[in-house]
Amino acid sequence: MKKYIVADEWNIIEEGFDPHLNKISESIFSLGNGRMGQRANFEENYSGETLQGNYVAGIYYPDKTRVGWWKNGYPEYFAKVLNAANWIGIDIRIGEETLDLYTAEVSNFKRVLNMKEGYLERTFTAKLQSGKMLQVCAKRFCSIVDDEAAAIQYSLKALNFDDVLTIIPYIDGDVQNQDSNYDEKFWDEVYKEVKGADAYLTLRTKKTAFDVCTATRFSVDTDQHYDIEELMKEKHVGARLQINIKAGEEIRIFKYAVNLSSENYPKDQLLQASKDLLNRVSAKGFDTMLQEQASAWAEKWKESDIIIKGDVEAQQGIRFNIFQLNQTYTGEDERLNIGPKGFTGEKYGGSTYWDTEAYCVPFYLATASPDVTRKLLIYRYKHLQKAIENAQKLGFKDGAALYPMVTINGEECHNEWEITFEEIHRNGAIAFAIYNYIRYTGDQEYLSEYGLEVLVGIARFWSQRVNWSEARKQYVMLGVTGPNEYENNVNNNWYTNTMACWCMKYAIEALDYVSGTHSDRYTELTTKMSFDAHKEIQAWKHIIDNMYYPQDEQRGVFLQQDGFLDKELIPVSELDPSDRPLNQKWSWDRILRSVYIKQADVLQGLYLLEDQFDEVTLRRNFDFYEPLTVHESSLSPCVHAILAAKLGDQKRAYEFYLRTSRLDLDDYNNDTEDGLHITSMAGTWMSVVEGFAGMRVRDGQLQFHPFLPEKWQSFSFNIFFRGSVININVDKDGVCLNNRSEKDITILLFGKPVFLAGSSSVNVDNHCAEFQ
Amino acid sequence: MKKYIVADEWNIIEEGFDPHLNKISESIFSLGNGRMGQRANFEENYSGETLQGNYVAGIYYPDKTRVGWWKNGYPEYFAKVLNAANWIGIDIRIGEETLDLYTAEVSNFKRVLNMKEGYLERTFTAKLQSGKMLQVCAKRFCSIVDDEAAAIQYSLKALNFDDVLTIIPYIDGDVQNQDSNYDEKFWDEVYKEVKGADAYLTLRTKKTAFDVCTATRFSVDTDQHYDIEELMKEKHVGARLQINIKAGEEIRIFKYAVNLSSENYPKDQLLQASKDLLNRVSAKGFDTMLQEQASAWAEKWKESDIIIKGDVEAQQGIRFNIFQLNQTYTGEDERLNIGPKGFTGEKYGGSTYWDTEAYCVPFYLATASPDVTRKLLIYRYKHLQKAIENAQKLGFKDGAALYPMVTINGEECHNEWEITFEEIHRNGAIAFAIYNYIRYTGDQEYLSEYGLEVLVGIARFWSQRVNWSEARKQYVMLGVTGPNEYENNVNNNWYTNTMACWCMKYAIEALDYVSGTHSDRYTELTTKMSFDAHKEIQAWKHIIDNMYYPQDEQRGVFLQQDGFLDKELIPVSELDPSDRPLNQKWSWDRILRSVYIKQADVLQGLYLLEDQFDEVTLRRNFDFYEPLTVHESSLSPCVHAILAAKLGDQKRAYEFYLRTSRLDLDDYNNDTEDGLHITSMAGTWMSVVEGFAGMRVRDGQLQFHPFLPEKWQSFSFNIFFRGSVININVDKDGVCLNNRSEKDITILLFGKPVFLAGSSSVNVDNHCAEFQ
Repeated sequence: MKKYIVADEWNIIEEGFDPHLNKISESIFSLGNGRMGQRANFEENYSGETLQGNYVAGIYYPDKTRVGWWKNGYPEYFAKVLNAANWIGIDIRIGEETLDLYTAEVSNFKRVLNMKEGYLERTFTAKLQSGKMLQVCAKRFCSIVDDEAAAIQYSLKALNFDDVLTIIPYIDGDVQNQDSNYDEKFWDEVYKEVKGADAYLTLRTKKTAFDVCTATRFSVDTDQHYDIEELMKEKHVGARLQINIKAGEEIRIFKYAVNLSSENYPKDQLLQASKDLLNRVSAKGFDTMLQEQASAWAEKWKESDIIIKGDVEAQQGIRFNIFQLNQTYTGEDERLNIGPKGFTGEKYGGSTYWDTEAYCVPFYLATASPDVTRKLLIYRYKHLQKAIENAQKLGFKDGAALYPMVTINGEECHNEWEITFEEIHRNGAIAFAIYNYIRYTGDQEYLSEYGLEVLVGIARFWSQRVNWSEARKQYVMLGVTGPNEYENNVNNNWYTNTMACWCMKYAIEALDYVSGTHSDRYTELTTKMSFDAHKEIQAWKHIIDNMYYPQDEQRGVFLQQDGFLDKELIPVSELDPSDRPLNQKWSWDRILRSVYIKQADVLQGLYLLEDQFDEVTLRRNFDFYEPLTVHESSLSPCVHAILAAKLGDQKRAYEFYLRTSRLDLDDYNNDTEDGLHITSMAGTWMSVVEGFAGMRVRDGQLQFHPFLPEKWQSFSFNIFFRGSVININVDKDGVCLNNRSEKDITILLFGKPVFLAGSSSVNVDNHCAEFQ
Repeated sequence: MKKYIVADEWNIIEEGFDPHLNKISESIFSLGNGRMGQRANFEENYSGETLQGNYVAGIYYPDKTRVGWWKNGYPEYFAKVLNAANWIGIDIRIGEETLDLYTAEVSNFKRVLNMKEGYLERTFTAKLQSGKMLQVCAKRFCSIVDDEAAAIQYSLKALNFDDVLTIIPYIDGDVQNQDSNYDEKFWDEVYKEVKGADAYLTLRTKKTAFDVCTATRFSVDTDQHYDIEELMKEKHVGARLQINIKAGEEIRIFKYAVNLSSENYPKDQLLQASKDLLNRVSAKGFDTMLQEQASAWAEKWKESDIIIKGDVEAQQGIRFNIFQLNQTYTGEDERLNIGPKGFTGEKYGGSTYWDTEAYCVPFYLATASPDVTRKLLIYRYKHLQKAIENAQKLGFKDGAALYPMVTINGEECHNEWEITFEEIHRNGAIAFAIYNYIRYTGDQEYLSEYGLEVLVGIARFWSQRVNWSEARKQYVMLGVTGPNEYENNVNNNWYTNTMACWCMKYAIEALDYVSGTHSDRYTELTTKMSFDAHKEIQAWKHIIDNMYYPQDEQRGVFLQQDGFLDKELIPVSELDPSDRPLNQKWSWDRILRSVYIKQADVLQGLYLLEDQFDEVTLRRNFDFYEPLTVHESSLSPCVHAILAAKLGDQKRAYEFYLRTSRLDLDDYNNDTEDGLHITSMAGTWMSVVEGFAGMRVRDGQLQFHPFLPEKWQSFSFNIFFRGSVININVDKDGVCLNNRSEKDITILLFGKPVFLAGSSSVNVDNHCAEFQ
């Protein structure tokens, strides 16, 4: 844990320069616009420790390195998120000296991520070895208006000298992935051009042959005449120019950049499209672009902000999470998804995990147009055929679908057998997201259009994945890994068994719905899927009715898996703190045979299917599993926060919330330098909205059951729900519901209906007996 | 499966040349002498498919390639057996044409591995594109008399031409491992020298810095004067010479080679030692060396041969296994061990697996001096400290020892968590080998000298590896992989639980013995080990008395692990043959959750601890597990053969035997080209000796309970037992026991004592009622 970020409601601020923190800050201050993104590297040369990182959505490399013992059924490759050309580079020389914050004496250093307007600003004073001092202010952003473009304004003021200033703006494509074995490089040069202030570099990925054209244009705000020396070398284009600078004088450099990929343009038009876009954005100019950026972010904030009063750190934390989520995914391209590190690092590889469905979908449902979530669902619909092929590779048949654990293009690209083959609960999350989307939006039509095929493929998978146990006279599911990845290859994971049957039930409901309302489409789909309604549904029902669920009758709890009670049930509180985090201190076998839980999957199941269980059951299981949970998954605490809130344990709900909300800002797990935990940020949002505010959607109705954390004066946020925009404000006096749309709506508050006419609001006093 | 080896009692013969079989034959016809070995590559250039392979005992490379997700506790590296310099090379040119069997028209091709005398011979007629025909006979061997030396005689006859013959003998050190990622090479050149007919090449392994000096000397048996052109390039030394050859004339080339490693000489003396040895062996000459080789092999065969009459294929098969075992390990160097591929390939890496203790020890005990097995035990004794460190890395303490799954120098060098961390039954095999050695030899002294420390380290490990289950009120062992590797991370593997308790019991017995007979040594050792006799022994006894063993009461069988009966119990016989072998046809998860068994570990336990179980128990378990076993481990069928024989099922015993005896000769599993299954060859020997002959040692007494497989006329072999050499011959008339030593001995035959005075024999008629 490191606590150096200055508390502020709208800004992330670092004051003073510490090279040891640089890689952490590079992650925290990352920029992105859903289409491209980058770590907060410096524009000018830096010889200290840095993880240079620029990423372009959808561009990957299939790494085939094999080691040890290959397993049958493994995918052909492990998809790497590719570090792409660095377009921010502006090297600076004063006389013969290079500006480098690692060797200069730095003062007044300040890095600010302005979340309100969506830009990064860095100011500092540097004293070079010669004693020459200069003051720099660098401001840049990835535009969410022109999402293939970005801009930099780099101002430089000579404080105590007159000298020649050399400026070297460049694009460097000779980059390497952090995780590449053997110093491999993944890009080949296709084209380069330098013409005055313009530079173009097209690179092609090895094996996958994606082309990315990066183009930049610079200008220098000066009256002096300067000559431009054009620079070209392997995978590198740039320019050099010199002007004279006088003490007290300030020079501003502008650099406009575009990143276009062959995912969006024919390769032969990539260069021209880049030139056109570069012309267009540079014609707007930096200030206009930044104004547009600020307006666009204002719109986003209007939709998705959570305002917390009385706790600046909490306010900063939640805004940071919302900001990064919005930087990562915009819902504009249904081929894209939400990688675990977004555009902030390259760890883990791949771009889509079950995190999207389990954690991000609730966030986008409530804070954006339904279309955003719909695109995430269609992403999986488009991968259905590949999921069917994936299941076939593992021996399943007749249209059974197993979605990949990690993917970029629908193919599995992860290769640990206990995860790739066994962490199959992901199929459940994908089905549940369809249910959740329809429950939230009411868009039943989605079923006949896309949903049904996915649900049937998933139900077929589950029905083949279980087997009849003669010994138990019940169905069992052997050899799985649940969401709690601190158990591998277990039998009868309660969560997986539960979700499997839920999926089959929901598929039957969906079939009923489509056959009842869209009989032609039903016939078309069942023919397409060779669906034998009678036989298959009967088989599913037999499984649903005869599934085995491990339980401890005595304690009245569900058992995480068979044999769970053979473990030593010593609570986490009795662990020696020096043993934590377990995943850094213990060997894998010790973790596996211990009772300790990375994220409690029984509780995850109770959270998802809350309605099916009474509060006594929730409480018993929470009380049993929570003390055994080490929360070493960033996805863990939010579920506990929501359940604790539901069970009325406000204090603990708040404690769990704290663990997630500043996870990256305060580098809780000493791993922020690798990139941010993007998907868990949605979990933080859930802790507030579903936890503190107790938001649910049941029977087409929005419900709240809010409480105010003791330390806060108030919190409020907007919810987009079926055409209405509802603002809820919770403070010490009570709850205020404000219908910001024209549409009337009735909301359940503390279980009681509250009618809100369009553009009206209702205050519910804390002392109002009816509502407590 | 491929069946092309010509049946012969003493020779392995391939007739006719098929390039598609070349890599298989390269494995089958491999040569070795315990110190070095090589695949049966051609001396002359070959442009077809080949796996060039030369290996030097004890030389390895630590590969650090990392992929995917590293687990805490993994070893630093994966040890690769290194492909070393190729010293057999003799390129041949006729005029401008190169002799290359891939491009020439080949006739009369014959490859013979003469197992009786220990050499490889290859003869063929080649017609070059020009129509020139020549006849070649190449003979070579790795000397078991001078075990760092080898020799080649390469005869070449011009059949229909006069021309210039160019001969290019060379050493090529620019070699690469088959399994190297990214074309990495693992050797650096240290020294090279060519002086006339002598060539020297010293290479050093990267990272491990082993030096190996390879030196060769050639001579050409001709009256013609020839000049020698010396050839040198990177990691390559050789010579070129030309003579005239006339139609009908035969030229003989001799090449002597030595391979000396810095494991046996100071690096600065390696070159001189190589020169000395090269002088010595070339002075002997090829014929003398070969005569010595034949005599030495005759001695080996006298000790370890099994003679089968009436079945040439069975005779060839068993001799091939015995020959390869003797080529792999000679018991002369306690730093060496028996790699799974010996000197015949580089698959798997590492040199020592539990195969050594479980399969090879019985072979060497019965066919060689006790000293050979003792060296194998001391090898593990010398690695005890590293085994303790290995256990510490995994969280064990107080001197608990976990031997590595795969090792070269005592350090773990395998990295699959389910094996490295969980296939811990290897500790049991290592303890059992001590017990087995002492049972066989009577050498109780071994305990106080070496054995006790190993046994205590292992017992300590088991006592920490189990945990108390409050739910069962018994000890359990969670998260293990048994010998049946088609189950991973299971709870309460019956074999492992059983061997764990057996180890603790035996350690207690060993402590009793040493304290009772060597009290000073006992005090010395317990002090050294900080052994708290009272506390530790009491803890072990509590575990032994309260261990949980999974069972099926109804069937009266032990259960392989918890939850085994939840599987679908469909016998292997009902599997679609196209699904076999499962490990090539099914995904790993499907194998894991299926009932099918790679090698039956319950049966393995019953085999090792046979005396503790009655025949009804053996039979019930055999009848339950055998039908579920796919025998996809080469180590599996022998145990089934022995148990079937024990249970009187002679027909099945013979069937199981057939599966192992010609496994490589007939390429049963389509993997012979990667190298031979060396350790399972000891299992084949066990099938005959412990299976058909029913040999056991109980209470210091040798026992036989033989039967003759229906197809055979007779079989016989020698057993070395406590100073006696007993030959047993089993034929249709009965059993003949022959004491070939001077020492009197009483043997149990069919449970009845037979007294054999020195140098006497006893015939027991089949009709002799007393013996049936």
